[in-house]
Amino acid sequence: MKHRVAVLGATGYSGRELIQLILRHPHLELVAAACRQVGEQKTLDQLMPGSPAQPLTALDDFQPEKADTVFLCLPHGASAEWAGRIPGRVIDLSADFRLKDPHLYQATYGLEHPHPEKLKTAVYGLTEVYRRQLKDAPLIANPGCYPTSILLALAPLDGPGLIIADSKSGVSGAGRAAAVANLYGEVAENVRPYQVGDKHRHRAEILQERPHNQLVFTPHVVPCFRGMLSSVYVDLPAGDVIKQYRDFYEGEPFVKIHTEPVTMAHTRHSNRCALSLHPLPQEGKLLILSSIDNLVKGAAGQALQNLNVAQGWPETCGF
Amino acid sequence: MKHRVAVLGATGYSGRELIQLILRHPHLELVAAACRQVGEQKTLDQLMPGSPAQPLTALDDFQPEKADTVFLCLPHGASAEWAGRIPGRVIDLSADFRLKDPHLYQATYGLEHPHPEKLKTAVYGLTEVYRRQLKDAPLIANPGCYPTSILLALAPLDGPGLIIADSKSGVSGAGRAAAVANLYGEVAENVRPYQVGDKHRHRAEILQERPHNQLVFTPHVVPCFRGMLSSVYVDLPAGDVIKQYRDFYEGEPFVKIHTEPVTMAHTRHSNRCALSLHPLPQEGKLLILSSIDNLVKGAAGQALQNLNVAQGWPETCGF
Amino acid sequence: MKHRVAVLGATGYSGRELIQLILRHPHLELVAAACRQVGEQKTLDQLMPGSPAQPLTALDDFQPEKADTVFLCLPHGASAEWAGRIPGRVIDLSADFRLKDPHLYQATYGLEHPHPEKLKTAVYGLTEVYRRQLKDAPLIANPGCYPTSILLALAPLDGPGLIIADSKSGVSGAGRAAAVANLYGEVAENVRPYQVGDKHRHRAEILQERPHNQLVFTPHVVPCFRGMLSSVYVDLPAGDVIKQYRDFYEGEPFVKIHTEPVTMAHTRHSNRCALSLHPLPQEGKLLILSSIDNLVKGAAGQALQNLNVAQGWPETCGF
Amino acid sequence: MKHRVAVLGATGYSGRELIQLILRHPHLELVAAACRQVGEQKTLDQLMPGSPAQPLTALDDFQPEKADTVFLCLPHGASAEWAGRIPGRVIDLSADFRLKDPHLYQATYGLEHPHPEKLKTAVYGLTEVYRRQLKDAPLIANPGCYPTSILLALAPLDGPGLIIADSKSGVSGAGRAAAVANLYGEVAENVRPYQVGDKHRHRAEILQERPHNQLVFTPHVVPCFRGMLSSVYVDLPAGDVIKQYRDFYEGEPFVKIHTEPVTMAHTRHSNRCALSLHPLPQEGKLLILSSIDNLVKGAAGQALQNLNVAQGWPETCGF
Repeated sequence: MKHRVAVLGATGYSGRELIQLILRHPHLELVAAACRQVGEQKTLDQLMPGSPAQPLTALDDFQPEKADTVFLCLPHGASAEWAGRIPGRVIDLSADFRLKDPHLYQATYGLEHPHPEKLKTAVYGLTEVYRRQLKDAPLIANPGCYPTSILLALAPLDGPGLIIADSKSGVSGAGRAAAVANLYGEVAENVRPYQVGDKHRHRAEILQERPHNQLVFTPHVVPCFRGMLSSVYVDLPAGDVIKQYRDFYEGEPFVKIHTEPVTMAHTRHSNRCALSLHPLPQEGKLLILSSIDNLVKGAAGQALQNLNVAQGWPETCGF
Repeated sequence: MKHRVAVLGATGYSGRELIQLILRHPHLELVAAACRQVGEQKTLDQLMPGSPAQPLTALDDFQPEKADTVFLCLPHGASAEWAGRIPGRVIDLSADFRLKDPHLYQATYGLEHPHPEKLKTAVYGLTEVYRRQLKDAPLIANPGCYPTSILLALAPLDGPGLIIADSKSGVSGAGRAAAVANLYGEVAENVRPYQVGDKHRHRAEILQERPHNQLVFTPHVVPCFRGMLSSVYVDLPAGDVIKQYRDFYEGEPFVKIHTEPVTMAHTRHSNRCALSLHPLPQEGKLLILSSIDNLVKGAAGQALQNLNVAQGWPETCGF
Repeated sequence: MKHRVAVLGATGYSGRELIQLILRHPHLELVAAACRQVGEQKTLDQLMPGSPAQPLTALDDFQPEKADTVFLCLPHGASAEWAGRIPGRVIDLSADFRLKDPHLYQATYGLEHPHPEKLKTAVYGLTEVYRRQLKDAPLIANPGCYPTSILLALAPLDGPGLIIADSKSGVSGAGRAAAVANLYGEVAENVRPYQVGDKHRHRAEILQERPHNQLVFTPHVVPCFRGMLSSVYVDLPAGDVIKQYRDFYEGEPFVKIHTEPVTMAHTRHSNRCALSLHPLPQEGKLLILSSIDNLVKGAAGQALQNLNVAQGWPETCGF
Repeated sequence: MKHRVAVLGATGYSGRELIQLILRHPHLELVAAACRQVGEQKTLDQLMPGSPAQPLTALDDFQPEKADTVFLCLPHGASAEWAGRIPGRVIDLSADFRLKDPHLYQATYGLEHPHPEKLKTAVYGLTEVYRRQLKDAPLIANPGCYPTSILLALAPLDGPGLIIADSKSGVSGAGRAAAVANLYGEVAENVRPYQVGDKHRHRAEILQERPHNQLVFTPHVVPCFRGMLSSVYVDLPAGDVIKQYRDFYEGEPFVKIHTEPVTMAHTRHSNRCALSLHPLPQEGKLLILSSIDNLVKGAAGQALQNLNVAQGWPETCGF
């Protein structure tokens, strides 16, 4: 018998990516694809041509007990509300269960956390780092796209010091909401840094994982639909840093260490993270280039990887 | 003393293109750049970096008598309302004064025309065709982008018969409104036909000018910001069609006849229309490729060209 | 035991697409991925990150007898040469075996056909039309991308008359050769018609299949990497044309009939052909919009679909 | 009488941009637009639709004495050769006269400098910094695009310390040469870092101007045709850094200081440099975002600005 999954928030870019992955996964049955309102598009194939003609479900009609695992692709706040009503496993792609401290959550997201008691049980789903805790976890907080790309670049390093992360993201990270800033005419032929300095919400998430570091984080939107490339500058550690990284990530199916610069295209449409290492001994710095597909390893793919781990299936199952 | 002009609807793509042209024009003074609400961007240079720091005006505060000519870059309906309040010349970039028949207007645009009495006095501003009537005209209906590209392709031909016009437009033609269909993620890597068959509103405008023809019109959005290329298929007329076109457009500063296929790039950022002619005697057809920049010859540029004509200035003045 | 396949011409866009499909196919083993010269990229994963580290083979070292089926993704001329040396099945993605008449081949492609004797045995691999002949076929001529998109749009219609096909193609159709015309700076923000009139080589291929029709064919390059959308205009046939199409394509796994306009995005990364029908009774015309992914149904995907048919496997196997 | 100018290397992206600027400049007459070989495109309007039908000149036929100022848009090496033959003023857009030390030139560009004796007389044309020396200068070395964007971001700061410059460039910076890396299919939907670490040739040029600093420089190609945005990270200087910048650049017509993040679009098609300042006191860093159009302020525009200065014309003349 298949594992029954539901996706709440099926019409956004992450939700759709997730549904496509689920439909190809051998152990999963999609019991519900729910969205706030069922509008003109009433079936999956109307939303995503080539998919089955399975009806979309209105969120209000969703029956949480019908699913073994529910993926939440809802805005923050709404996700936490829903998490309180679901008896099975929850994998939350929003930010609601990533920060452990409810005060920090409130300061960062501007609203009181609806279920602060659940923050402790939530496991932060950066798979390569928290794999053990993810086994059988009932509530998984799927990491943000920027944190995934930056934290995987840093995981093998444990020193203190300043991190400068200059990240370039495809516009799908901003979601499918109608906003002037995301119009073709505004995104094409442009590179747009935003929320520079201490403004971006993902800062808190990165620093929670790197409490001994300082962080300068500059996110940019580039004219791509999907993809993310982070240039991460840190102090050059002692020793053979390439070996350190290769040892740390040995056996990881989704992380690969390169010595030639990786590009965004290295990981397009895949759940992989491609890292390239560029030691600059003269300047005492190490540049780590980190490439992920923001919709896959940065969202839907990692969510499914986490389900694989939680269920004890092979981690590459369905990819 | 300079000719005082105002632009109502300054924040859209056409309005901004027009303002940039006005600022370079030697005989014009921009006395007002008005928009519905003055929001975060309070001056021209905030809207368009590099422009002067001239304040934007709220539409409600606009004083129509301060301008010798007012350009209306407002939605249809709103334009006609404003046209009734303006003592000076009006050049309307909306569709409100293009159709001569108020019933056809109502059928096409779904609202009763607020000033049907003005329809007769309005001159259709397809400059190369209506140049004489444009001199001193008090109300000019600037043509739509598709009609400009298609009608200029057809103007030298007067035969009856079926016209098939397959047009490709940059997304700026859809304006700067926040709509999911115009998001980068929806437009990039896509070609989207829309309002095919008898649905597009510009059909009525084209057929008004070509009453002896039938028309199949298929507009497409392509992943470009600006530009328009129409492939127009008609019955091959008798005689030397290339000579006919060259004779018809002889001396025109903004129309050029080519024999190699023109591309969208031929007219980017210019007020020109580039036509290429491809007689297909075996199939009895003539293919005319017509390239314009939808924001210039298809909107703001032709509006300024029309002002040049109306004022008796050299037609290329300011370009 | 798996069916052993080889791909000659592994580094181009079609070759790479095909290899990715082969690697996911349950019955296939890729025994060789060959390219003219093995340069800096020596393994599949260097060519396509995330693939296995299988070495690339130099064409000169390829042993034809090692493969049960060889896919030829080589330039025309070179393909026909290779076809003469291969003992197993050949599926040729070039144009070399599409035209039945060697004189027409020579007139169209400018060289004498190296193996005219094989032209008769070759089956034209438009799967939905030639499925029966494809079973066990030793030599399959995979159709061109434009012909696939146009002929599938026309297959249910058998009347005479003029066909106007206005096609928009992603730039990958031009291959991965370094040419100024395919540079980012030339393709972006442009729509470029080319080889209009009677110049494009795919005309001969389309007319071979539609001998009772006349054809006006206008191909355009649009700023997309992959995808193809053809607007096909024909005389409106009598009867319920939508029903005719639905009946004709009933049960086809890869062709779907729509009544709302299809877009290029309808078939991206899939082997489907999406057709939408727009009868225009007033003008006596029928517009058929046809969307395929030029690299999949227009090349690599149809090649694999043809192998599935030839082998008697389910036609959707591996997709 | 007009100042006679020639452009050697008219067909590349910089050459064409320069010609368009020259044609709009009130004091200039374009006496020659020369390219290595006059091929299919024999006149300016064939190269750039809408330009005058002035014939292109073959480089071999160019008569240097006919021009008061010659702009060299040739590859490095070729530029220096030509500079030796020109009696009038030379403004060189290549790298040939930027580095003062011929050994450094040889180490960086891999060839012996053909005219090392001219290196001393050449003025480095970063206008805002070397304005005084540019007056009447006979040989001007126009800066590279990356150095322009980074050095203008740094000019008001004189402290030592490490500079991290993470730059994003439109693909036109790579020129119009047919190379696989610059194909649409390789550039679109990708961000590609290249020559990271100590490999990029512009490093030497930047460090020549910043001898007391260390530099980590990471250039990236993004899917834009034109534009450049550099994120420059330095130690936060004492005092009111925004005031420092405003004072330094006071009265500069082409440099503006912002406090909201600038984007690539801020300077598109203009000769301006837009800088935004983001002090990060907690991390002890200052982020400077620097936006230029690589083809204008980063190449052709600055060249013309330098000619204006050299001739004593108003610096904004022709823009």
